[in-house]
Amino acid sequence: MREVAVIGCGMTRFGELWSLSMRDIFVEAALKAIDDAGVDHIDSMYVGSMTPGLFVGQEHVGALMADYLGSAPVPAVRVESACCSGGMALRLGFFEVASGYSEIIMVGGVEKMTDGADVTYALATAADQEYEVYHGVTFPGLYAMIARAHMHQYGTTRKQLATVSVKNHRNGSMNPNAQFPGLVTVDQVINATMVADPLTVLDSSPVSDGAACVILASVDMAKKLGRPLVKILGTGAATDTLALHAREDITTLAAVRHSARAAYDMAKVTPRDINLAEVHDCFSIAEICIIEELGFVEKGKGGSFTEQGRTALEGPIPVNTSGGLKSKGHPVGATGVAQVVEVVEQLRGAAGKRQIKNARIGLTQNMGGSGASSVVHIFQAQ
Amino acid sequence: MREVAVIGCGMTRFGELWSLSMRDIFVEAALKAIDDAGVDHIDSMYVGSMTPGLFVGQEHVGALMADYLGSAPVPAVRVESACCSGGMALRLGFFEVASGYSEIIMVGGVEKMTDGADVTYALATAADQEYEVYHGVTFPGLYAMIARAHMHQYGTTRKQLATVSVKNHRNGSMNPNAQFPGLVTVDQVINATMVADPLTVLDSSPVSDGAACVILASVDMAKKLGRPLVKILGTGAATDTLALHAREDITTLAAVRHSARAAYDMAKVTPRDINLAEVHDCFSIAEICIIEELGFVEKGKGGSFTEQGRTALEGPIPVNTSGGLKSKGHPVGATGVAQVVEVVEQLRGAAGKRQIKNARIGLTQNMGGSGASSVVHIFQAQ
Repeated sequence: MREVAVIGCGMTRFGELWSLSMRDIFVEAALKAIDDAGVDHIDSMYVGSMTPGLFVGQEHVGALMADYLGSAPVPAVRVESACCSGGMALRLGFFEVASGYSEIIMVGGVEKMTDGADVTYALATAADQEYEVYHGVTFPGLYAMIARAHMHQYGTTRKQLATVSVKNHRNGSMNPNAQFPGLVTVDQVINATMVADPLTVLDSSPVSDGAACVILASVDMAKKLGRPLVKILGTGAATDTLALHAREDITTLAAVRHSARAAYDMAKVTPRDINLAEVHDCFSIAEICIIEELGFVEKGKGGSFTEQGRTALEGPIPVNTSGGLKSKGHPVGATGVAQVVEVVEQLRGAAGKRQIKNARIGLTQNMGGSGASSVVHIFQAQ
Repeated sequence: MREVAVIGCGMTRFGELWSLSMRDIFVEAALKAIDDAGVDHIDSMYVGSMTPGLFVGQEHVGALMADYLGSAPVPAVRVESACCSGGMALRLGFFEVASGYSEIIMVGGVEKMTDGADVTYALATAADQEYEVYHGVTFPGLYAMIARAHMHQYGTTRKQLATVSVKNHRNGSMNPNAQFPGLVTVDQVINATMVADPLTVLDSSPVSDGAACVILASVDMAKKLGRPLVKILGTGAATDTLALHAREDITTLAAVRHSARAAYDMAKVTPRDINLAEVHDCFSIAEICIIEELGFVEKGKGGSFTEQGRTALEGPIPVNTSGGLKSKGHPVGATGVAQVVEVVEQLRGAAGKRQIKNARIGLTQNMGGSGASSVVHIFQAQ
């Protein structure tokens, strides 16, 4: 298998981008990535997007984006795995370059969520329509059940949940692309409007528009181009039951654990080797479960680990230096690619005020539904 | 790049499968393919599906199908390129095996279109929402414009269009999985209910439920397993403008030409080497344009070529031996994979009454929208 590197990245600001259509948003991120990579062509395109059909009445967004970018006739395809559509697009693009079929490709993600669609219904299509959604379950409810179970089984506290949001807003306050860069306190998180007990609106990632793109190249081609390169050391993906009730233990995100193990094995690294991670904090409880499954901390201790500042910008394993989904925003299909943009910028030493020290190996973890899909990538600066 | 083969295939009957949900349909095809391949595990899954969100309120169908097949935690992802979602899923699965990352994978396609959704709206999301759909254009209208232009520029006749449907229904009459296996005459096609002048309902592929799956393996692994194998010699994909009005000539399907050239080049074959082809006859005019772009006949002469029986089962280049989208049915996400099932069965000599003679090299061509996406694969019996 050929080695593959990220040689360029770009993203839009995340937020309510009412003056821009989905295609405008994607093209802005794509042009930034092409410019950053310094390439004059791409061999193909992957577009992660969760449900543009329900959000804006448009499917076929692979070809649409190639058209509006002026890239046709290059091959283009959309990849969907609910909220990890972007991360899965990266994985599939990686295979195309690793196989030797293509030299330089684009992987992007985009979502336009604020154009008037029924967002709660659209997002709920990532859950099991027959066994969950039909009966009225939504994602805040599913994650609230996970939070309650985690509190019950491991003694995780309401305050510990809140510290995830406090940390991520602090990081996001240093990110010019963040949708909600304001700082929040533990009291503000706990006393915010209740969404699904115990999760308040400040435990929850927002509804967002946005896009992110990266350019991948074979390492040989990247060296010829002479651009700074960040190698993809490993990729791992896994699935779990779509419905939460079908799992033995709802605090265990088995797909995260399996996908992480596959990526660690391929990269030949362990959790201790990771210098920073962008993870899928769609709700505060998700980040706590995920850092446990990734092996950064023992199962059940994610809450106290976060409260102790171990995942803070200055901690031993900074998590969501970008502000995460909570502060940066969560245009679902774009999120997985935006995570890569953050890790690449950190590994390049170009993350500005939120730059961490000694960033050499970074990890991204992107998740779909209540954990039915997870994809993990590991990157190393060269 | 490693060599990749199809070692198993299965499909459901296409039709109005009211007693089965989308997941049931997929699992039926998947189990048939696994059984046919004789494998006891798969490394990952690709699921082509166009718009399950609009058809049945369910996205995240990669993970869902892994769950219902009992395959979780294997990685699973959905691929979407409108009506060529199935063909693009095959291409992406090919890359995963060709890269050396996986040995045995499943590529499937599924669509459940008859559960009460607004099918015309759902399908129209494959067109340009802002420049076409918003103004009332639908796919029968777009293809009718292509037909009118082809008749005007090349003298293609109404009767020639009808001969496409007559041929495909004749082939489909020998396919036990076909939705509409009945024979039709030229007069019946021409005098059927008008959909969009000059195209009648018998020029148009139907609304269908169905699924198809294939198992891919590296050629080395396939040889170890000892199953009959059909090698994938080439893959090509391309895009064009999403909106028809943006093209210089609406009778030219540039994406089909580009994707075919890429596949021929990779396979090191020419159109003359192809013994049979499954092509995207969503409307009768589409098959005429496609056989021209694939190089089976000179531009503008696809109508007379068909009328002369050159693409019939006994002709020099049999096209749509399965019955095509017209007679077999067109559950959009499944179609591209079902094309592969037909070619594999023909190359194995297992196509029953519709078996052609001397089938050695076969081609599939799957298309999205009014030709904004096209993907071509070339297969060889071993």
